Amino acid sequence: MQGKTFTVVGGGPVGTLLAILLARHGYKVGLYESRPDSRKTSIYQGKSINIALSDRGWTSLEKIGISAEAKNLAIPMYRRTIHSVNGELSALPYGKDDDAIWSVSRGGINEQLLDIADEESNITTYFEHRLVDVDFESATTTFKVENTRDLVVESDFVFGADGAHSKVRRLAHNFPRFSYSQTYMPQCYIELNIAANSDGTHQIEKNALHIWPRQDFMLIALPNDDGTFTCTLFMNYSGQPSFESLQNRSAVEVFFESNFADAMEYLENPVDVFMEKTAAPLFLVHVFPWSFNRKVGLIGDAAHAIVPFYGQGMNCGFEDCAELDALITQYDHDWEQIFPAYENARKPNGDAIAELSKRNFVEMSDLSGDRRFQLRKKIEAKFSSLFPELWTPLYSMVTFSPDVPYSEALRIGDEQNKIMERIMGLPNIEDDWDNQYVMDQLFDFASETFGNG
Amino acid sequence: MQGKTFTVVGGGPVGTLLAILLARHGYKVGLYESRPDSRKTSIYQGKSINIALSDRGWTSLEKIGISAEAKNLAIPMYRRTIHSVNGELSALPYGKDDDAIWSVSRGGINEQLLDIADEESNITTYFEHRLVDVDFESATTTFKVENTRDLVVESDFVFGADGAHSKVRRLAHNFPRFSYSQTYMPQCYIELNIAANSDGTHQIEKNALHIWPRQDFMLIALPNDDGTFTCTLFMNYSGQPSFESLQNRSAVEVFFESNFADAMEYLENPVDVFMEKTAAPLFLVHVFPWSFNRKVGLIGDAAHAIVPFYGQGMNCGFEDCAELDALITQYDHDWEQIFPAYENARKPNGDAIAELSKRNFVEMSDLSGDRRFQLRKKIEAKFSSLFPELWTPLYSMVTFSPDVPYSEALRIGDEQNKIMERIMGLPNIEDDWDNQYVMDQLFDFASETFGNG
Repeated sequence: MQGKTFTVVGGGPVGTLLAILLARHGYKVGLYESRPDSRKTSIYQGKSINIALSDRGWTSLEKIGISAEAKNLAIPMYRRTIHSVNGELSALPYGKDDDAIWSVSRGGINEQLLDIADEESNITTYFEHRLVDVDFESATTTFKVENTRDLVVESDFVFGADGAHSKVRRLAHNFPRFSYSQTYMPQCYIELNIAANSDGTHQIEKNALHIWPRQDFMLIALPNDDGTFTCTLFMNYSGQPSFESLQNRSAVEVFFESNFADAMEYLENPVDVFMEKTAAPLFLVHVFPWSFNRKVGLIGDAAHAIVPFYGQGMNCGFEDCAELDALITQYDHDWEQIFPAYENARKPNGDAIAELSKRNFVEMSDLSGDRRFQLRKKIEAKFSSLFPELWTPLYSMVTFSPDVPYSEALRIGDEQNKIMERIMGLPNIEDDWDNQYVMDQLFDFASETFGNG
Repeated sequence: MQGKTFTVVGGGPVGTLLAILLARHGYKVGLYESRPDSRKTSIYQGKSINIALSDRGWTSLEKIGISAEAKNLAIPMYRRTIHSVNGELSALPYGKDDDAIWSVSRGGINEQLLDIADEESNITTYFEHRLVDVDFESATTTFKVENTRDLVVESDFVFGADGAHSKVRRLAHNFPRFSYSQTYMPQCYIELNIAANSDGTHQIEKNALHIWPRQDFMLIALPNDDGTFTCTLFMNYSGQPSFESLQNRSAVEVFFESNFADAMEYLENPVDVFMEKTAAPLFLVHVFPWSFNRKVGLIGDAAHAIVPFYGQGMNCGFEDCAELDALITQYDHDWEQIFPAYENARKPNGDAIAELSKRNFVEMSDLSGDRRFQLRKKIEAKFSSLFPELWTPLYSMVTFSPDVPYSEALRIGDEQNKIMERIMGLPNIEDDWDNQYVMDQLFDFASETFGNG
């Protein structure tokens, strides 16, 4: 627009999508990434690091005008497949009918977006450029480039899309009245693998997210399109059991055999991997404002790093981009208005999905294996199918209802919770749940809370 | 102890008290302060920056064995004196009988503690030494000293007592699994002055904390022993009215005249001061852990910077010191045990007083001027005098009950709140409050909640 320039720090999926939308609005964009170009160095070997993408992500891509090519390589997961300790399986659908969350390769979607960016003449992408400084007054950035002097880049605006450990955000710590928090979860994680069959098919059910819920810890598995699964073991950092307490090999073997017996025939050397790898921490970041001097902004994980238990991290980052895309049009490129409108619109949603993602660890690791929890889900699903205008389950609001902001989903979900506690407190609910009077009661409660009109 | 050495960073009241107690336990202590020695440079001109000290502070000093010399120079404030917009005064006692909070000179108490430290042969105090680095593995610190090379100090342990902006804490941001938050309040503040009468007496009531509560903003005044008052104007940073919105002199004049008419005859050039000074921000800091590698600890504002609305900041820091003093004895100098015991004991109290201090802005700025609030206080005071074992008002628990931890005070206060909401909801409470049935009702509610035995 009128020759204005943007520096986007971070060439991950969110930074690249942001660069594309800015370019399509007419801005000249420099996109700077600290790592090498994965398309040339195969840094994402096997492309087996996967993440969940769902309706908010796809919808945001569409709004920005990116045809959902990525969806071709993505694997729909229609249900959670729950593995009990004794190896019994049970299925818990994510929503109704064809509702699915999608397992996508992080590297794959990133490369697709980089390919699209390459076609935009307004974007120049620089790899192996590591940010070292930002001047928040002048929107000047400084990058370290190997074997050369530091590169100083002048631009009109800067966006930090540089992820959970954002350097742009850290540099803003001294900005006047900048509130920030970084909070560690008690859990850490390591990644494990399940190999493909020799013919490239999946050894366990492909179209599901597998969960081994064990209350204080859990194992999950998401399918990759090469037939493998990427598994994540989430467990406390300290206490019993924990990454700290499981120090010797035989204890680790016992731990896996007794908790994940049915998975042991598929997992690739889980004990070796466990002994070798350092567990990675999980943390949440809350900051405000998300913009500085109407010149420098934060977006994606840089603005709101969350934990992965709702599978919404990338979805939320893509939504940030879609919001910005709409605001550029709405305020006709007036960044004095766009920056505050952007942060005021997105901050409550970032906070809400952070809270939801934190809570969902308990749901996944504990309640998913709990019979009463499954019963509650069944009652909600039945009621929702009878009265869809009165009740969308929280999970569906967050995952399949991109028109409902996260903050609204959280608020409604809390109301639903109170109602379902009353329903689950009905005498004989376990036997009578399919009875008409339960639906009647639920209808009364829901009408009372959510009204009819 | 056994020749172990401590580096204490920060020679304010908390750091100096910490140095004294460590020295008295037999440790060699280096006390490092970035500013010059105020006893030589009169950096605290007029010593007119005052803070509130109350029972927790005095009790902690006594526990550590510091005779309360400071109390001689402190001014007891038995009540809040509330100035309404039209200049009417009303009094709200802080507690019963002789309960008082004390206005002390920050500089004065600091200097008294430094004098005591000077008499301890185990303490060496260094002024104008600014911390630049801490090695959290080896407890080595590096200080910048003018006109010399950086000074590297080796010691067995380090404590950061370097205040709300603690450099030790900032250097810990990269420590594994260190959670931190820094949250700005919407309010900022500037300090104003009321001069003494020519004979050195106070122009307005000496033994009170004066409040001009105006809902969204307020002015307060604390007495100094030289006859002056130090006043603080708290107001939003932005919005209406705010430090941002009040930019021109005539608007500021109107603001003062219309809101603080009765104070205008005492305040020294408030409009000039307002126009000249930059409003200072208010923020809260939460971190955990408060210790690193069992070698480096945080204490006082460095561990838990709070806002000044409960007058508890220095009290809380002194309590940290008293807790540490007791733990050194309890664990016989085993710092492997002392550090975790210290942070686990004090963290919930730091969090509680942070929450209480935040809430108290509303109480001071809004409710203090509110008739129903004053009525509620009266009912509570009456009930508390009838049944002291069943009810100590929250303010008294926090301020006059050093045996009740802050976290306990917060919990009990929340229960009391629920009860008083029911009492204030009684029909005709404004007319009937002195009626026996109100006390009976309150007795029933309180017995139900707090039990009898």
